[in-house]
Formats: sequence, C-alpha cells, structure tokens
Amino acid sequence: MTDITLEQAERVLATALADATARGLAMNVAVVDAGANLKAFARQDGAWLGSVDISIKKARTARYFDMPTGDIGSLSQPGGPLFGIEVSNDGLISFPGGLPLTIDGVIVGAIGVSGSTVEDDHAVASAGAEALALTVGASA
Amino acid sequence: MTDITLEQAERVLATALADATARGLAMNVAVVDAGANLKAFARQDGAWLGSVDISIKKARTARYFDMPTGDIGSLSQPGGPLFGIEVSNDGLISFPGGLPLTIDGVIVGAIGVSGSTVEDDHAVASAGAEALALTVGASA
Amino acid sequence: MTDITLEQAERVLATALADATARGLAMNVAVVDAGANLKAFARQDGAWLGSVDISIKKARTARYFDMPTGDIGSLSQPGGPLFGIEVSNDGLISFPGGLPLTIDGVIVGAIGVSGSTVEDDHAVASAGAEALALTVGASA
Amino acid sequence: MTDITLEQAERVLATALADATARGLAMNVAVVDAGANLKAFARQDGAWLGSVDISIKKARTARYFDMPTGDIGSLSQPGGPLFGIEVSNDGLISFPGGLPLTIDGVIVGAIGVSGSTVEDDHAVASAGAEALALTVGASA
Repeated sequence: MTDITLEQAERVLATALADATARGLAMNVAVVDAGANLKAFARQDGAWLGSVDISIKKARTARYFDMPTGDIGSLSQPGGPLFGIEVSNDGLISFPGGLPLTIDGVIVGAIGVSGSTVEDDHAVASAGAEALALTVGASA
Repeated sequence: MTDITLEQAERVLATALADATARGLAMNVAVVDAGANLKAFARQDGAWLGSVDISIKKARTARYFDMPTGDIGSLSQPGGPLFGIEVSNDGLISFPGGLPLTIDGVIVGAIGVSGSTVEDDHAVASAGAEALALTVGASA
Repeated sequence: MTDITLEQAERVLATALADATARGLAMNVAVVDAGANLKAFARQDGAWLGSVDISIKKARTARYFDMPTGDIGSLSQPGGPLFGIEVSNDGLISFPGGLPLTIDGVIVGAIGVSGSTVEDDHAVASAGAEALALTVGASA
Repeated sequence: MTDITLEQAERVLATALADATARGLAMNVAVVDAGANLKAFARQDGAWLGSVDISIKKARTARYFDMPTGDIGSLSQPGGPLFGIEVSNDGLISFPGGLPLTIDGVIVGAIGVSGSTVEDDHAVASAGAEALALTVGASA
C-alpha cells in the first residue's frame, strides 16, 4: 500500500490552512492516511468546536469510499440508493469538504475540512489536495 | 477564551425555569460553558425524560457551531447542504431550542431547552439567554 | 414510585455546593431521580472537566444499585464477586462519592459528587444527602 | 479561561516530534485546548495506529483532571481510591504520556503522546510541554 508520509500530510495541512486564512476563514483540517487513520490535524483559532469531529469524519468518509464526500451525499438523499448510509462507520459525513489525496493517481489518504459553508470547505480541501498532486481525480 | 461562571449559568437557568413555569410548561434546561462542557442543568417535575439528553445536545450543538440550533436544521434537510450532519459529535440536535450565550457579544457558552414544542423550547431558551446578555445576536 | 422533586433536588445541590465551598473545594454535583435520570447538576468554577461525567455516573450508580458507590467498589476488585462491573450501563463508577437520597427511608434518587479526593467527594455527597433526609441509611 | 493558540499548539507539537525523532522513536502526538477539544495532532511515519486514540485520550485525560495521566494511574490500581475510573468520559488513559500545558502557571490545554514505552511517551510529552512553559508544575 502506498501511504502518505507525515511530511506530505503536513504540506497538505499547511496549504489548506494558508488557503483558509487567505479567504478570511477559520477551519478545522484533518488528514488521514491510506488506512483511513488520522495522520495530521489542526484547528485554527476561533474555528467551530463541532467541526473537529466533522473534519475527521469527512476525511475518513472520503477514504472509506475513495470519492469526494459530496458524491456520497448525492446518493444518500431520501429515495436514493444509499439513503441512511451516514449512520454506518460510527458516523459518515456526506456533504462536501472531504477529498481523496492522490499521488500519480494513486490514493494515499484523504483530507477533510469543516468550518464554513460546504462550498468554502470544499475549496479549502481542494487547495490542500492540490498541494500533494498536480491532478486530483475527483471533484465534489 | 471568556467563560461563563456558575453564578451566571445559574441565573440563566433560573430565568429559563421561571419563564417555563409562567407558560405552564415543564422543561429540561441545560447550560454548557465555552468549551461545550456541561455547567448547569435542571429538569422540572413532570418534564419529559427523553429531553434530558436533547437539552444537553441542543446546548452543545449551539456552542459547537456558535449559532441557534434551528439554523443548522434549516441547512440539514434532505437536499440541503448539511444533510445528515446530526450523526456527528455523538449526536447533534438541529431543531430550535439551543442558543449561544453571549456577554458583550462574546460567546461564553450555550443554553439548550427541551420539553415542549420547538417554538416553546426556543422561547424559553431565549428568555434564559436574555438573562445574561441584553442583546442576543441570533434567533432560530 | 416516590420521586424527588426539583425543589428537593435543588436543596440537595445547593447544600452540597455550599459544603464544597466551605471546604475550599470546587466540585461537580449531580442529582438523579428515582428513575436514575438526571434531575439537577452544577459544576463550580475551576472544577475538573472530567468530573462532569463521573459525578453523573456516581449518582446513577448509587441509584442503579441503591447503595453507596464505594460499597460496589469493595466487591468489584480483582478476585471479587463483581469484578469488571464498571463496564456495564455505559460505565459505572465504583468508588465513593455517590449516595442514595432518601425521604423517610424511601429512596427517591441519588447524588454524585466528583472533584477532589474520594473522601472529600463522599463528605460533600453526604452533606447534600443530609439536606433531604435526617437519616441516610448507608455510608461509604 | 485562557486558551492555547494554534501557533502555540504547533510549537508544542513540533518540539515533541523533534524530540521523538532525536530518540529514534515514532510517535502520535495530540494537543487539546482549555476545553479539552482537539487542537493539533500528528502521527509520525511507522507509529502505532492504536496510539492515535490513546494520544488523544491522554491529552484529554490530562486536561480533564489537570494532572499528569500517570498520577491518575497511581490511584486507579486495584485497591486504589480511583479503581475503574478509566471507563468514564468515553475512556480515560491513566498511564504516563499526558501532561497539562501551562503558560505562567495557568493551564491552557494538554499534550498526549503515545507510541513507545510509557517512559518514552512521558519524556516526549515533557519536551513538548516545556516548549510552551519554562516550568511544568507536575511530573508523572
């Protein structure tokens, strides 16, 4: 299994935090490895306390299913094929802000961002993901 | 971080309980501090047992995201941007009855009320919040 | 079922808090009703955050088994008849600080105190219990 | 309540990680704030996966009771006054590796380290804590 290193995770984290600051936002940012285990995390001063758990769950969810978290949400609505999936795995987050992290097209982990609108969360997660790979294979 | 004192929390609690009594209601009322940890709680005689947990979760939810719990619910409906957020943080409550507590505009904790309709819950929570601050910055 | 009223729970709580203050301690104090459901709670300024949960668990444990929590601990040691009982009921606390609350010998709830040594916790719990009944039928 | 900033938490984290590297160890390091909520985290390459949770629980435990985690373990042995306390608060860790973080004697958060022997864990946690305050008031 190709796995993210701490140096790479810290680069993803620092890039996402800088992007959040540039946008005037205060974010929680989590990075998990290829095994969906927490690798690095930071909560900016003033960021929502409830987003600690959500950012970690977004990162896990993105790695659990190797897709942007928002893609799952499009399938988990009432009447949809994955309705209710959020109760599995001690809680999934199925709205945008979680993205797989790839190197040369191979998934090595995931990033989860929480602290603002889902559009902002996704944008900051994308900035972090792009720090690792020039091409990110999916979008939410 | 400015934090609520027990004297302040007891004032919020007593005001909310008196307001509930004046309305002929029996309520569960919880107050959490700036770190979202329980500070004070009371359940009036005859109030719903299931509302112990809900009132505490409402208070935590309001502090976790620094907004009225009802605001989250308006975003977490099917098709909404935060659909399914309730599974995070060991359970959020996203309907009205939870409000941040502020002193001079700084959030120092939160109140959660449960035991009647969400309109009643919100009204009693507002009464409690107003005991602490002359201006509460948000409404559910 | 004879049950504790909020007025009685508040009297127990206030007496325990005053006793803690007189001893120069900062405590978490919880009162549960005859159904072992939380009735009233307060955390004094500066009291341990980890004692929120412990004080509530002490009160529940005392009512779950209608005895001082310390009595359970004497039976739950390695080799004892109740070894490991602490993992039940989402977590019991089996050291002193929890006591049944009685009126005329009838158990109507329980008090749990946490924030200092177990001797201090027990002493403050006893003060609270005595506010309700002249005779408390058990000691830890 | 004085709270740790992200800049301070990152300094604690970086110091602890550098200390671990200098000792030839691979560690999980967690920092929580004054409210016991996660502030920063990093897992070094090759560090135990099971230590993610343990490092976070050590940090929380140290802040929950404002003392080194090892101090609690000395009281929670069979026959000790706090036997069984580990089942509270969704799981406490009561062996060394968690320490309060102080600035000018005021507790602003805590650090938890897991990944080696408890002696190593404690030594690395101490290095992290010393990055924030010249004097750490307790030892495990």
